[in-house]
Amino acid sequence: MTLSTGAALQGPVGVVGLGLIGGSIGLDLRARGVEVRGLVHRQATAERARQRGLAAWVDTDPAVLADCRLVVLALPLDRLLDPAGELLAALPVEAVITDVGSVKAPVLARWQALHPRFVASHPMAGTALAGVEAGMAGLFVDRPWVVTPGPTTDPAALRQVQALAGLLRARWLSCGAEEHDQAVALVSHLPVLVSAALLLAADRGAASAAAGGGEDLPGLVRALASRGFADTTRVGGGNPELGVLMARTNREALLAALAHYRRCLEALEREVQSGQWAGLDADLQRSRRLRPEFL
Amino acid sequence: MTLSTGAALQGPVGVVGLGLIGGSIGLDLRARGVEVRGLVHRQATAERARQRGLAAWVDTDPAVLADCRLVVLALPLDRLLDPAGELLAALPVEAVITDVGSVKAPVLARWQALHPRFVASHPMAGTALAGVEAGMAGLFVDRPWVVTPGPTTDPAALRQVQALAGLLRARWLSCGAEEHDQAVALVSHLPVLVSAALLLAADRGAASAAAGGGEDLPGLVRALASRGFADTTRVGGGNPELGVLMARTNREALLAALAHYRRCLEALEREVQSGQWAGLDADLQRSRRLRPEFL
Repeated sequence: MTLSTGAALQGPVGVVGLGLIGGSIGLDLRARGVEVRGLVHRQATAERARQRGLAAWVDTDPAVLADCRLVVLALPLDRLLDPAGELLAALPVEAVITDVGSVKAPVLARWQALHPRFVASHPMAGTALAGVEAGMAGLFVDRPWVVTPGPTTDPAALRQVQALAGLLRARWLSCGAEEHDQAVALVSHLPVLVSAALLLAADRGAASAAAGGGEDLPGLVRALASRGFADTTRVGGGNPELGVLMARTNREALLAALAHYRRCLEALEREVQSGQWAGLDADLQRSRRLRPEFL
Repeated sequence: MTLSTGAALQGPVGVVGLGLIGGSIGLDLRARGVEVRGLVHRQATAERARQRGLAAWVDTDPAVLADCRLVVLALPLDRLLDPAGELLAALPVEAVITDVGSVKAPVLARWQALHPRFVASHPMAGTALAGVEAGMAGLFVDRPWVVTPGPTTDPAALRQVQALAGLLRARWLSCGAEEHDQAVALVSHLPVLVSAALLLAADRGAASAAAGGGEDLPGLVRALASRGFADTTRVGGGNPELGVLMARTNREALLAALAHYRRCLEALEREVQSGQWAGLDADLQRSRRLRPEFL
């Protein structure tokens, strides 16, 4: 039930970075009896990770990875794309290396040149939390674990990552790195900007009305915003560093997604402008029909 | 605690339309011992409303309103703005008349000419439900009940509506009708279009990629859409009829809101296009700071 292939996970497993994703991987693997070795940046993080039991052995010295058969790089995209030399030197050449980055083409391009057994992957699970306190058991259950193998990806290494995803009970999905990046640009990175722009527009629209004599508007928009506004703005009110990182690393696909979005919104605006209510109704009927396909 | 004025609600109270808002008003008033008379359009609705106890007396004949001291028009905006002649004829001239419409300036303009004791109001509560099954107890507790009195609004009539809102334990808010409409355009009507455009863009972007050789994209975007996408698209996947009605009746304010939105999104797009990451970071920091002000 947990594994769709016969491959068993070979340990010990190294986890580099014990934040939300790395810490959750550590907790689940330990609960399944796998030996986990954690590498973190700071002593204070190492201590807290030990207290939380995120790994059997936590250190700030990359030597902790020495005997690992699989190493998961659970690092932010910028550190993943520009890895420290001492980390690279410490990765065993026979080990399978994988990552958890939310953008895949630049990661695959960089890492397939850095390590012969690299597998690009993206476990799609998240909460609003980050840092050493964020890791939690069962984070990946029934969530997509996307891998984006390239032409040189080692099939045996890929099977090890599949064994990892299976142990964590994630849903295994394989696609091209470019396709992955186009898809997440549309359903994950575009929503951040669409949602942030809504917060900025509500504030700016109210401020503009206030300047024109409607001085109650800034207070009124804040008092009248209800659950619909809260939902639509949730991802736009999230972590700015993550937002900038995804825009930087997935820029081309995000710009393409923004262009599609602009055209769709402008079509709706034209219908309102010119009173084409049947056309607006048809578009809103279509968006209502589409939504369940994405849930 | 429930009333901020000394005014007591004078009954019986008529409720025209027993959907989500009208039915919920009926249930709460009856629980507080007020005599409620319901007017609905169809016999089948009347029967079901009686079974659910939404009013003490439910009829399809407007004569049911004869002795009411307060009548709540819980009708869709189009029927509110173009009321049936037999409804108008049945409204007692001494009764206080109020509505629950989500757009206020056109309603106030129309109804202050139709009835001397009309008070424009907008109880801001909602669920995904509609129709005679949707009414529920306690829907208005701690939710805004906005009134938009005009220069000719009768102060004694306004106090009766305040007594109603107080009995239902809503938060009383008074502002100008134009200001109300500008505010809801920004925080309630704009999000519907912003959110619908996201669904349309995800579908169109994937279809366009598929046409260009990425045939997996339509399936991939649907598989990879996660909670952030679900939240951001919730209001855009809602009732198309409501969306069109709010756009038709609040068109000017919605177009102004769309123009603000377009400028905010274009600024973000320019930052991504030209790699102004510090500017993008500042905007996302700002949207993160803004969001709690609206919750």
